[in-house]
Amino acid sequence: MKRKLAKLVLVRHGESVANRDNVYTGWNDVPLSKKGIAQAKNAGLKVEKIAEFAPTHIHTSVLSRAIMTANIIADVCSFLYLPITKTWRLNERHYGALRGINKDVSKKIFGTNQVLEWRRGFDSVPPLLTQPVQDRRYQKYDMRLMPQGESLHQTQERLMPYFWDHIAPELMAGHDQLVVAHGSSLRALIKKIEDISNEDIVKVEVPNAEPIVYTFDTDLHIVKKEILH
Amino acid sequence: MKRKLAKLVLVRHGESVANRDNVYTGWNDVPLSKKGIAQAKNAGLKVEKIAEFAPTHIHTSVLSRAIMTANIIADVCSFLYLPITKTWRLNERHYGALRGINKDVSKKIFGTNQVLEWRRGFDSVPPLLTQPVQDRRYQKYDMRLMPQGESLHQTQERLMPYFWDHIAPELMAGHDQLVVAHGSSLRALIKKIEDISNEDIVKVEVPNAEPIVYTFDTDLHIVKKEILH
Repeated sequence: MKRKLAKLVLVRHGESVANRDNVYTGWNDVPLSKKGIAQAKNAGLKVEKIAEFAPTHIHTSVLSRAIMTANIIADVCSFLYLPITKTWRLNERHYGALRGINKDVSKKIFGTNQVLEWRRGFDSVPPLLTQPVQDRRYQKYDMRLMPQGESLHQTQERLMPYFWDHIAPELMAGHDQLVVAHGSSLRALIKKIEDISNEDIVKVEVPNAEPIVYTFDTDLHIVKKEILH
Repeated sequence: MKRKLAKLVLVRHGESVANRDNVYTGWNDVPLSKKGIAQAKNAGLKVEKIAEFAPTHIHTSVLSRAIMTANIIADVCSFLYLPITKTWRLNERHYGALRGINKDVSKKIFGTNQVLEWRRGFDSVPPLLTQPVQDRRYQKYDMRLMPQGESLHQTQERLMPYFWDHIAPELMAGHDQLVVAHGSSLRALIKKIEDISNEDIVKVEVPNAEPIVYTFDTDLHIVKKEILH
Protein backbone atom coordinates (compact mmCIF):
# COMPACT_ATOMS: atom_id res chain seq x y z
CA MET A 1 0.00 0.00 0.00
CA LYS A 2 1.33 3.39 -0.98
CA ARG A 3 1.63 5.76 1.96
CA LYS A 4 -0.14 9.08 1.84
CA LEU A 5 2.30 11.98 2.05
CA ALA A 6 1.37 15.50 3.17
CA LYS A 7 2.92 18.86 2.43
CA LEU A 8 3.53 21.62 4.96
CA VAL A 9 4.25 24.98 3.37
CA LEU A 10 5.75 27.72 5.56
CA VAL A 11 5.77 31.32 4.36
CA ARG A 12 7.20 34.34 6.16
CA HIS A 13 5.10 37.47 5.53
CA GLY A 14 6.14 39.97 2.85
CA GLU A 15 8.24 42.99 3.82
CA SER A 16 6.52 45.07 6.49
CA VAL A 17 7.03 48.80 6.87
CA ALA A 18 9.13 47.94 9.96
CA ASN A 19 11.33 45.53 7.96
CA ARG A 20 11.79 48.33 5.47
CA ASP A 21 12.77 50.76 8.22
CA ASN A 22 15.03 48.20 9.99
CA VAL A 23 13.04 48.40 13.22
CA TYR A 24 12.44 45.66 15.83
CA THR A 25 8.77 44.83 15.56
CA GLY A 26 7.77 41.64 17.36
CA TRP A 27 4.21 42.07 18.58
CA ASN A 28 3.82 45.60 17.22
CA ASP A 29 1.17 45.49 14.52
CA VAL A 30 2.49 46.99 11.30
CA PRO A 31 1.14 46.62 7.75
CA LEU A 32 2.97 45.30 4.68
CA SER A 33 4.95 47.80 2.63
CA LYS A 34 4.11 48.15 -1.08
CA LYS A 35 7.06 45.88 -1.78
CA GLY A 36 5.69 43.44 0.80
CA ILE A 37 2.32 43.28 -0.97
CA ALA A 38 4.08 42.53 -4.27
CA GLN A 39 6.20 39.87 -2.53
CA ALA A 40 3.06 38.26 -1.09
CA LYS A 41 1.48 38.07 -4.56
CA ASN A 42 4.66 36.54 -5.88
CA ALA A 43 4.68 34.01 -3.03
CA GLY A 44 1.10 33.16 -4.02
CA LEU A 45 2.21 32.41 -7.58
CA LYS A 46 4.94 30.12 -6.21
CA VAL A 47 2.53 28.32 -3.85
CA GLU A 48 0.06 27.90 -6.73
CA LYS A 49 2.71 25.99 -8.71
CA ILE A 50 3.53 23.48 -5.95
CA ALA A 51 2.55 20.13 -7.47
CA GLU A 52 -0.50 18.50 -5.84
CA PHE A 53 -0.61 21.00 -2.98
CA ALA A 54 -4.20 21.06 -1.73
CA PRO A 55 -4.22 22.52 1.78
CA THR A 56 -7.23 22.00 4.02
CA HIS A 57 -6.38 24.82 6.44
CA ILE A 58 -4.41 28.06 6.67
CA HIS A 59 -2.70 28.94 9.96
CA THR A 60 -1.38 32.40 10.76
CA SER A 61 -0.69 34.80 13.63
CA VAL A 62 -2.90 37.62 14.92
CA LEU A 63 -0.53 40.20 13.40
CA SER A 64 -1.74 42.05 10.31
CA ARG A 65 1.41 41.58 8.21
CA ALA A 66 1.04 37.80 8.35
CA ILE A 67 -2.75 37.82 7.90
CA MET A 68 -2.50 40.18 4.91
CA THR A 69 0.12 37.90 3.36
CA ALA A 70 -2.06 34.83 3.99
CA ASN A 71 -5.10 36.53 2.44
CA ILE A 72 -3.12 37.62 -0.63
CA ILE A 73 -1.69 34.11 -1.13
CA ALA A 74 -5.18 32.63 -0.67
CA ASP A 75 -6.58 35.01 -3.25
CA VAL A 76 -3.89 34.24 -5.83
CA CYS A 77 -4.22 30.47 -5.29
CA SER A 78 -8.06 30.44 -5.20
CA PHE A 79 -7.83 29.25 -1.59
CA LEU A 80 -9.88 32.11 -0.14
CA TYR A 81 -12.61 29.71 0.97
CA LEU A 82 -10.23 27.71 3.16
CA PRO A 83 -10.68 27.91 6.92
CA ILE A 84 -8.06 30.18 8.45
CA THR A 85 -6.97 30.22 12.09
CA LYS A 86 -5.27 33.30 13.50
CA THR A 87 -3.44 32.51 16.73
CA TRP A 88 -1.13 34.50 19.01
CA ARG A 89 0.96 31.31 19.30
CA LEU A 90 2.25 31.86 15.75
CA ASN A 91 3.09 35.52 16.50
CA GLU A 92 6.60 36.80 15.96
CA ARG A 93 9.07 36.52 18.83
CA HIS A 94 8.24 39.24 21.36
CA TYR A 95 11.21 41.61 21.41
CA GLY A 96 10.30 43.17 24.74
CA ALA A 97 11.60 46.70 25.22
CA LEU A 98 13.45 46.51 21.87
CA ARG A 99 10.21 46.74 19.92
CA GLY A 100 9.86 49.91 17.90
CA ILE A 101 13.61 50.63 18.13
CA ASN A 102 15.77 50.86 15.01
CA LYS A 103 18.24 47.97 14.95
CA ASP A 104 21.26 50.21 14.44
CA VAL A 105 20.11 52.54 17.21
CA SER A 106 19.71 49.54 19.54
CA LYS A 107 23.44 48.75 19.05
CA LYS A 108 24.34 52.28 20.11
CA ILE A 109 22.11 52.09 23.18
CA PHE A 110 22.96 48.59 24.39
CA GLY A 111 26.27 47.86 22.62
CA THR A 112 26.83 45.68 19.56
CA ASN A 113 27.85 42.58 21.53
CA GLN A 114 24.79 42.69 23.77
CA VAL A 115 22.45 43.10 20.80
CA LEU A 116 24.16 40.24 18.94
CA GLU A 117 23.74 38.07 22.02
CA TRP A 118 20.00 38.87 22.23
CA ARG A 119 19.60 37.96 18.57
CA ARG A 120 21.81 34.88 18.50
CA GLY A 121 21.51 33.11 21.81
CA PHE A 122 18.69 30.55 21.77
CA ASP A 123 17.95 31.35 25.41
CA SER A 124 18.79 35.06 25.43
CA VAL A 125 15.90 37.18 26.65
CA PRO A 126 15.74 40.81 25.49
CA PRO A 127 15.01 43.58 28.02
CA LEU A 128 11.42 43.04 29.14
CA LEU A 129 8.48 45.40 28.92
CA THR A 130 7.18 46.43 32.32
CA GLN A 131 3.78 44.91 31.47
CA PRO A 132 2.27 42.73 28.71
CA VAL A 133 1.06 44.38 25.50
CA GLN A 134 -2.33 46.04 26.07
CA ASP A 135 -4.28 45.20 22.95
CA ARG A 136 -7.86 44.10 22.29
CA ARG A 137 -6.65 40.94 20.55
CA TYR A 138 -5.05 39.62 23.78
CA GLN A 139 -7.74 40.76 26.22
CA LYS A 140 -9.47 37.40 26.36
CA TYR A 141 -6.35 35.68 27.72
CA ASP A 142 -5.01 35.49 31.24
CA MET A 143 -2.41 38.23 31.30
CA ARG A 144 0.06 35.88 33.01
CA LEU A 145 0.15 33.89 29.76
CA MET A 146 1.24 36.91 27.74
CA PRO A 147 4.99 37.55 27.38
CA GLN A 148 6.77 40.84 28.08
CA GLY A 149 9.73 39.74 25.97
CA GLU A 150 10.90 36.32 24.74
CA SER A 151 13.99 34.32 23.88
CA LEU A 152 13.76 32.24 20.71
CA HIS A 153 13.38 29.23 23.02
CA GLN A 154 10.39 30.80 24.78
CA THR A 155 8.88 31.61 21.38
CA GLN A 156 9.24 27.95 20.47
CA GLU A 157 7.67 26.79 23.73
CA ARG A 158 4.49 28.81 23.22
CA LEU A 159 4.31 27.98 19.51
CA MET A 160 4.71 24.21 19.60
CA PRO A 161 1.44 23.40 21.47
CA TYR A 162 -0.41 24.90 18.49
CA PHE A 163 1.70 22.90 16.04
CA TRP A 164 1.22 19.60 17.88
CA ASP A 165 -2.53 20.10 18.39
CA HIS A 166 -3.66 21.71 15.14
CA ILE A 167 -1.08 21.19 12.38
CA ALA A 168 0.74 17.89 13.05
CA PRO A 169 -2.45 15.76 13.32
CA GLU A 170 -3.66 17.09 9.96
CA LEU A 171 -0.32 16.31 8.30
CA MET A 172 -0.33 12.82 9.81
CA ALA A 173 -3.82 12.34 8.34
CA GLY A 174 -2.44 13.26 4.91
CA HIS A 175 -3.90 16.78 4.75
CA ASP A 176 -1.66 19.53 3.34
CA GLN A 177 -1.32 22.67 5.53
CA LEU A 178 -0.27 26.27 4.87
CA VAL A 179 1.38 28.35 7.62
CA VAL A 180 2.04 32.07 7.18
CA ALA A 181 4.03 33.52 10.04
CA HIS A 182 7.19 35.44 10.97
CA GLY A 183 10.98 35.26 10.66
CA SER A 184 11.70 34.15 14.20
CA SER A 185 8.52 32.20 14.92
CA LEU A 186 9.21 30.17 11.76
CA ARG A 187 12.87 29.70 12.80
CA ALA A 188 11.62 28.34 16.12
CA LEU A 189 9.31 25.93 14.31
CA ILE A 190 11.94 24.87 11.76
CA LYS A 191 14.42 24.22 14.59
CA LYS A 192 11.99 21.69 16.05
CA ILE A 193 10.88 20.13 12.76
CA GLU A 194 14.45 19.65 11.53
CA ASP A 195 15.99 19.06 14.97
CA ILE A 196 18.57 21.81 14.50
CA SER A 197 21.04 22.49 17.35
CA ASN A 198 21.06 25.68 19.44
CA GLU A 199 24.29 26.67 17.70
CA ASP A 200 23.19 25.97 14.12
CA ILE A 201 19.82 27.73 14.33
CA VAL A 202 21.69 31.06 14.35
CA LYS A 203 22.63 30.47 10.72
CA VAL A 204 19.07 29.76 9.59
CA GLU A 205 17.50 32.71 7.82
CA VAL A 206 13.87 32.76 6.66
CA PRO A 207 13.57 35.42 3.94
CA ASN A 208 10.29 37.29 3.37
CA ALA A 209 7.76 35.50 1.16
CA GLU A 210 9.91 32.54 0.02
CA PRO A 211 7.79 29.41 0.55
CA ILE A 212 9.46 26.46 2.29
CA VAL A 213 7.88 23.16 1.27
CA TYR A 214 8.19 20.10 3.51
CA THR A 215 6.84 16.73 2.48
CA PHE A 216 6.10 14.43 5.44
CA ASP A 217 5.16 10.81 5.76
CA THR A 218 2.37 9.83 8.14
CA ASP A 219 4.89 9.45 10.99
CA LEU A 220 5.85 13.08 10.45
CA HIS A 221 9.29 12.27 9.11
CA ILE A 222 10.62 14.64 6.47
CA VAL A 223 10.71 13.00 3.04
CA LYS A 224 11.71 16.14 1.15
CA LYS A 225 12.39 19.83 1.74
CA GLU A 226 12.46 22.53 -0.90
CA ILE A 227 12.77 26.32 -0.68
CA LEU A 228 11.09 28.28 -3.50
CA HIS A 229 13.43 31.26 -3.96
CA MET B 1 -28.96 47.05 36.08
CA LYS B 2 -28.30 48.32 32.61
CA ARG B 3 -28.70 45.57 30.03
CA LYS B 4 -25.85 44.81 27.68
CA LEU B 5 -26.81 45.43 24.07
CA ALA B 6 -25.07 43.87 21.08
CA LYS B 7 -24.73 44.99 17.48
CA LEU B 8 -25.12 42.77 14.45
CA VAL B 9 -23.77 44.34 11.27
CA LEU B 10 -24.77 42.79 7.94
CA VAL B 11 -22.91 43.71 4.77
CA ARG B 12 -23.59 42.48 1.26
CA HIS B 13 -20.36 42.06 -0.74
CA GLY B 14 -19.20 44.80 -3.13
CA GLU B 15 -20.13 44.59 -6.80
CA SER B 16 -18.90 41.36 -8.36
CA VAL B 17 -17.99 41.02 -12.02
CA ALA B 18 -21.27 39.07 -12.39
CA ASN B 19 -23.31 41.90 -10.79
CA ARG B 20 -21.60 44.22 -13.25
CA ASP B 21 -22.51 41.97 -16.17
CA ASN B 22 -26.09 41.39 -14.90
CA VAL B 23 -25.60 37.63 -14.69
CA TYR B 24 -27.18 35.14 -12.24
CA THR B 25 -24.35 33.95 -10.05
CA GLY B 26 -25.48 32.07 -6.96
CA TRP B 27 -22.80 29.53 -6.11
CA ASN B 28 -20.56 30.43 -9.05
CA ASP B 29 -17.35 31.86 -7.64
CA VAL B 30 -16.61 35.26 -9.13
CA PRO B 31 -14.29 38.00 -7.87
CA LEU B 32 -15.15 41.59 -7.01
CA SER B 33 -15.04 44.13 -9.82
CA LYS B 34 -12.77 47.17 -9.39
CA LYS B 35 -15.86 49.10 -8.37
CA GLY B 36 -16.68 46.32 -5.89
CA ILE B 37 -13.25 46.62 -4.25
CA ALA B 38 -13.75 50.38 -3.87
CA GLN B 39 -17.25 49.76 -2.43
CA ALA B 40 -15.82 47.28 0.08
CA LYS B 41 -13.24 49.84 1.26
CA ASN B 42 -16.01 52.40 1.59
CA ALA B 43 -18.11 49.92 3.57
CA GLY B 44 -15.08 49.44 5.85
CA LEU B 45 -14.94 53.18 6.51
CA LYS B 46 -18.64 53.12 7.40
CA VAL B 47 -18.26 50.11 9.70
CA GLU B 48 -15.26 51.78 11.36
CA LYS B 49 -17.45 54.73 12.32
CA ILE B 50 -20.21 52.66 14.01
CA ALA B 51 -20.14 53.84 17.62
CA GLU B 52 -18.86 51.23 20.10
CA PHE B 53 -18.88 48.43 17.51
CA ALA B 54 -16.33 45.86 18.70
CA PRO B 55 -17.08 42.55 16.96
CA THR B 56 -15.64 39.33 18.34
CA HIS B 57 -16.15 37.32 15.15
CA ILE B 58 -16.60 37.73 11.39
CA HIS B 59 -18.93 35.34 9.55
CA THR B 60 -18.97 34.95 5.78
CA SER B 61 -19.70 32.48 2.99
CA VAL B 62 -17.23 30.28 1.11
CA LEU B 63 -17.61 32.48 -1.99
CA SER B 64 -14.67 34.74 -2.86
CA ARG B 65 -16.68 37.94 -3.41
CA ALA B 66 -17.93 37.85 0.19
CA ILE B 67 -14.58 36.77 1.67
CA MET B 68 -12.71 39.50 -0.25
CA THR B 69 -15.21 42.07 1.03
CA ALA B 70 -14.86 40.77 4.60
CA ASN B 71 -11.05 40.90 4.38
CA ILE B 72 -11.09 44.44 2.98
CA ILE B 73 -13.47 45.65 5.71
CA ALA B 74 -11.34 43.92 8.34
CA ASP B 75 -8.23 45.61 6.98
CA VAL B 76 -9.80 49.08 6.95
CA CYS B 77 -11.23 48.63 10.49
CA SER B 78 -8.06 47.04 11.99
CA PHE B 79 -10.12 43.88 12.56
CA LEU B 80 -7.83 41.59 10.56
CA TYR B 81 -6.91 39.63 13.68
CA LEU B 82 -10.54 38.65 14.35
CA PRO B 83 -11.52 35.01 13.90
CA ILE B 84 -13.40 34.53 10.64
CA THR B 85 -15.67 31.64 9.77
CA LYS B 86 -16.43 30.87 6.13
CA THR B 87 -19.48 28.67 5.78
CA TRP B 88 -21.51 27.39 2.80
CA ARG B 89 -24.62 28.12 4.91
CA LEU B 90 -24.11 31.86 4.31
CA ASN B 91 -23.67 31.31 0.55
CA GLU B 92 -25.88 33.16 -1.91
CA ARG B 93 -29.15 31.51 -2.93
CA HIS B 94 -28.34 28.72 -5.38
CA TYR B 95 -29.89 29.75 -8.70
CA GLY B 96 -29.79 26.25 -10.18
CA ALA B 97 -29.67 26.14 -13.98
CA LEU B 98 -29.99 29.95 -14.12
CA ARG B 99 -26.47 30.45 -12.86
CA GLY B 100 -24.13 31.99 -15.38
CA ILE B 101 -27.07 33.23 -17.50
CA ASN B 102 -27.59 36.94 -18.18
CA LYS B 103 -30.77 38.13 -16.48
CA ASP B 104 -32.20 39.68 -19.65
CA VAL B 105 -31.38 36.56 -21.65
CA SER B 106 -33.13 34.42 -19.03
CA LYS B 107 -36.36 36.37 -19.67
CA LYS B 108 -36.12 35.59 -23.37
CA ILE B 109 -35.50 31.90 -22.70
CA PHE B 110 -38.07 31.31 -19.95
CA GLY B 111 -40.44 34.27 -20.32
CA THR B 112 -40.60 37.40 -18.19
CA ASN B 113 -43.43 36.16 -15.97
CA GLN B 114 -41.70 32.89 -15.16
CA VAL B 115 -38.44 34.67 -14.29
CA LEU B 116 -40.30 37.19 -12.11
CA GLU B 117 -42.00 34.30 -10.32
CA TRP B 118 -38.63 32.61 -9.65
CA ARG B 119 -37.27 35.84 -8.24
CA ARG B 120 -40.32 36.93 -6.26
CA GLY B 121 -42.01 33.85 -4.90
CA PHE B 122 -40.65 32.92 -1.47
CA ASP B 123 -41.10 29.24 -2.34
CA SER B 124 -40.35 29.38 -6.07
CA VAL B 125 -37.56 27.00 -7.04
CA PRO B 126 -35.54 27.82 -10.17
CA PRO B 127 -34.81 25.07 -12.73
CA LEU B 128 -32.45 22.65 -10.98
CA LEU B 129 -28.98 21.58 -11.99
CA THR B 130 -28.80 17.89 -12.83
CA GLN B 131 -26.24 17.40 -10.03
CA PRO B 132 -24.79 19.44 -7.14
CA VAL B 133 -21.89 21.82 -7.83
CA GLN B 134 -18.63 19.86 -8.12
CA ASP B 135 -16.14 21.98 -6.25
CA ARG B 136 -13.36 21.22 -3.79
CA ARG B 137 -14.93 23.46 -1.17
CA TYR B 138 -18.02 21.21 -0.93
CA GLN B 139 -16.27 17.85 -1.23
CA LYS B 140 -16.20 17.20 2.48
CA TYR B 141 -20.01 17.26 2.73
CA ASP B 142 -22.55 14.56 1.98
CA MET B 143 -23.65 15.42 -1.54
CA ARG B 144 -27.30 14.96 -0.53
CA LEU B 145 -26.93 18.08 1.64
CA MET B 146 -25.87 20.21 -1.32
CA PRO B 147 -28.60 21.99 -3.29
CA GLN B 148 -29.04 21.90 -7.08
CA GLY B 149 -31.15 25.07 -6.95
CA GLU B 150 -33.01 26.82 -4.13
CA SER B 151 -36.05 28.94 -3.37
CA LEU B 152 -35.48 31.85 -1.00
CA HIS B 153 -37.24 29.73 1.63
CA GLN B 154 -34.80 26.86 1.13
CA THR B 155 -31.92 29.33 1.36
CA GLN B 156 -33.31 30.51 4.69
CA GLU B 157 -33.71 26.95 5.98
CA ARG B 158 -30.05 26.06 5.40
CA LEU B 159 -28.83 29.43 6.64
CA MET B 160 -30.69 29.69 9.95
CA PRO B 161 -29.00 26.73 11.71
CA TYR B 162 -25.72 28.63 11.39
CA PHE B 163 -27.32 31.82 12.70
CA TRP B 164 -28.93 30.11 15.70
CA ASP B 165 -25.81 28.13 16.62
CA HIS B 166 -22.98 30.59 15.95
CA ILE B 167 -24.30 34.17 15.75
CA ALA B 168 -27.37 34.43 18.01
CA PRO B 169 -25.65 33.04 21.15
CA GLU B 170 -22.83 35.57 20.77
CA LEU B 171 -25.29 38.45 20.40
CA MET B 172 -27.25 37.25 23.43
CA ALA B 173 -23.97 37.23 25.38
CA GLY B 174 -23.44 40.87 24.40
CA HIS B 175 -20.76 40.26 21.75
CA ASP B 176 -21.01 42.29 18.54
CA GLN B 177 -20.88 40.28 15.29
CA LEU B 178 -20.07 41.10 11.66
CA VAL B 179 -21.67 39.14 8.81
CA VAL B 180 -20.58 39.62 5.20
CA ALA B 181 -22.77 37.71 2.77
CA HIS B 182 -25.00 38.02 -0.30
CA GLY B 183 -28.12 39.80 -1.56
CA SER B 184 -30.51 36.90 -1.23
CA SER B 185 -28.91 35.09 1.69
CA LEU B 186 -29.08 38.35 3.66
CA ARG B 187 -32.72 38.88 2.57
CA ALA B 188 -33.50 35.41 3.92
CA LEU B 189 -31.82 36.28 7.21
CA ILE B 190 -33.45 39.72 7.47
CA LYS B 191 -36.86 38.13 6.80
CA LYS B 192 -36.40 35.96 9.87
CA ILE B 193 -34.82 38.63 12.10
CA GLU B 194 -37.54 41.19 11.33
CA ASP B 195 -40.35 38.66 10.89
CA ILE B 196 -41.24 39.98 7.42
CA SER B 197 -44.12 38.31 5.51
CA ASN B 198 -43.65 36.24 2.34
CA GLU B 199 -45.30 39.06 0.39
CA ASP B 200 -43.30 41.93 1.86
CA ILE B 201 -39.86 40.32 1.54
CA VAL B 202 -40.12 40.88 -2.24
CA LYS B 203 -39.75 44.60 -1.66
CA VAL B 204 -36.63 44.27 0.50
CA GLU B 205 -33.48 45.11 -1.40
CA VAL B 206 -29.99 44.74 0.06
CA PRO B 207 -27.63 46.98 -1.94
CA ASN B 208 -23.95 46.12 -2.32
CA ALA B 209 -21.70 47.23 0.54
CA GLU B 210 -24.22 49.28 2.56
CA PRO B 211 -23.90 48.11 6.18
CA ILE B 212 -27.13 47.32 8.05
CA VAL B 213 -26.72 47.80 11.80
CA TYR B 214 -29.06 46.03 14.22
CA THR B 215 -28.87 46.60 17.95
CA PHE B 216 -30.31 43.72 19.99
CA ASP B 217 -31.06 43.25 23.64
CA THR B 218 -30.03 40.00 25.33
CA ASP B 219 -33.36 38.41 24.39
CA LEU B 220 -32.54 39.08 20.75
CA HIS B 221 -35.22 41.72 20.34
CA ILE B 222 -34.37 44.56 17.96
CA VAL B 223 -33.79 47.82 19.83
CA LYS B 224 -32.66 49.78 16.78
CA LYS B 225 -31.99 49.33 13.05
CA GLU B 226 -29.96 51.62 10.86
CA ILE B 227 -28.82 51.36 7.23
CA LEU B 228 -25.57 53.15 6.41
CA HIS B 229 -26.14 54.37 2.85
